[in-house]
Amino acid sequence: MSVVLPAERLQKALGYIFSEPRLLKQALTHRSHSSTHNERLEFVGDGILNALVARRLYHTFPQFSEGDLSRLRAHFVRQDSLAIIATELQLGDYLSLGEGELKSGGHRRPSILADALEAVLGAIWLDGGFESAATVVEQLFAARIAEVNPEDAMKDAKTSLQEWLQARKLSLPQYDVLRQMGESPDQIFEVSCTCVELKMASKAEGTSRRAAEQEAAGSLLKQLRLQYPGKKVVKK
Amino acid sequence: MSVVLPAERLQKALGYIFSEPRLLKQALTHRSHSSTHNERLEFVGDGILNALVARRLYHTFPQFSEGDLSRLRAHFVRQDSLAIIATELQLGDYLSLGEGELKSGGHRRPSILADALEAVLGAIWLDGGFESAATVVEQLFAARIAEVNPEDAMKDAKTSLQEWLQARKLSLPQYDVLRQMGESPDQIFEVSCTCVELKMASKAEGTSRRAAEQEAAGSLLKQLRLQYPGKKVVKK
Repeated sequence: MSVVLPAERLQKALGYIFSEPRLLKQALTHRSHSSTHNERLEFVGDGILNALVARRLYHTFPQFSEGDLSRLRAHFVRQDSLAIIATELQLGDYLSLGEGELKSGGHRRPSILADALEAVLGAIWLDGGFESAATVVEQLFAARIAEVNPEDAMKDAKTSLQEWLQARKLSLPQYDVLRQMGESPDQIFEVSCTCVELKMASKAEGTSRRAAEQEAAGSLLKQLRLQYPGKKVVKK
Repeated sequence: MSVVLPAERLQKALGYIFSEPRLLKQALTHRSHSSTHNERLEFVGDGILNALVARRLYHTFPQFSEGDLSRLRAHFVRQDSLAIIATELQLGDYLSLGEGELKSGGHRRPSILADALEAVLGAIWLDGGFESAATVVEQLFAARIAEVNPEDAMKDAKTSLQEWLQARKLSLPQYDVLRQMGESPDQIFEVSCTCVELKMASKAEGTSRRAAEQEAAGSLLKQLRLQYPGKKVVKK
């Protein structure tokens, strides 16, 4: 008789089996579902992820200054990038969300996915120690880091989006603040970024308007690159 | 015949002996001295320090939210706090500085000391592995974390300073930008924070005006608490 481990497929995808599965369960629990949620683990995971990516970049790019390394790391650990990795791991399938979040598609929301991935990494560190976390982070990031075009990655997303649009003779994107929640310093801004001529838009949240705009720009640029891999675009 | 290790006393104070002393040497070299300076190591050290302090706070304060943990960590890893630890280690005595920095007292400057401490921690991680870095960080921070009053520590420095002054019927502090160097995003602001009635002031640098003001406020508050441990103050 085989025993089904919690999130067995996810643990296989991560290449790590938890000794204390309750830590994994907590890492996959959004605050909308239960008071034993993943935010404290996310704090720990954010720490170890940033440290490990810093070390990997230090070794991979011996010619880069601290400022360049820092910009490059921001590219790899930003919400958008983490959400892509979480999606590849199908992490959304294992999330425990409250009813509201479930109905509004929370298991596909980039912020929820990125936070849960960080929480899972934090849980692995606490469960299996540093080498376990290092092995998983290496497996998830090493190829991405080896293949990156550093110049592209170090440009901020708003600049890259602007350059992409200008190269196609399109107007600058439009940024709008959709919502502003909470009070400083825990404020959350939700902004949209729209390319009017192509009728494409993105939304993102951030702890500052600028951060949210960067996220939204990066996300729209990704959509645009998928939709129009070449130089030709179709105005709508 | 005894061989004098580089910075032998510092290595003893850290409780860590380097296998590759050139890493320690680099960690102690300011950019004003040589092109093989400590900024890349500082990037790595900042990462591991943040991760380790995150884990320690996670275990020490199981009741705290992610936001509280994050504010508490900011208190322990901010420039001012790191500069104090660096001073206790007499790290300034081992720094290689350029002539200009030497003349202007660079080996006592909080930003240089804090950066060098982070670089040393990064060098220990690279030289001796995770457990070595964890042991040193634990030794430097565990007692401070155990003894902290979290409520005080989580308040931002400007708020704490304002409260201290108001409790003594003094006016609000005055913040002035003294210098603004470099270009965005590598800008450095130097600000002063002055309590006019007590004729006491502090200076600090930061990558934003707000960050510099926070540093300066924290530094002035520390001076004020030393000078006036009780409620009574002497206007000058």
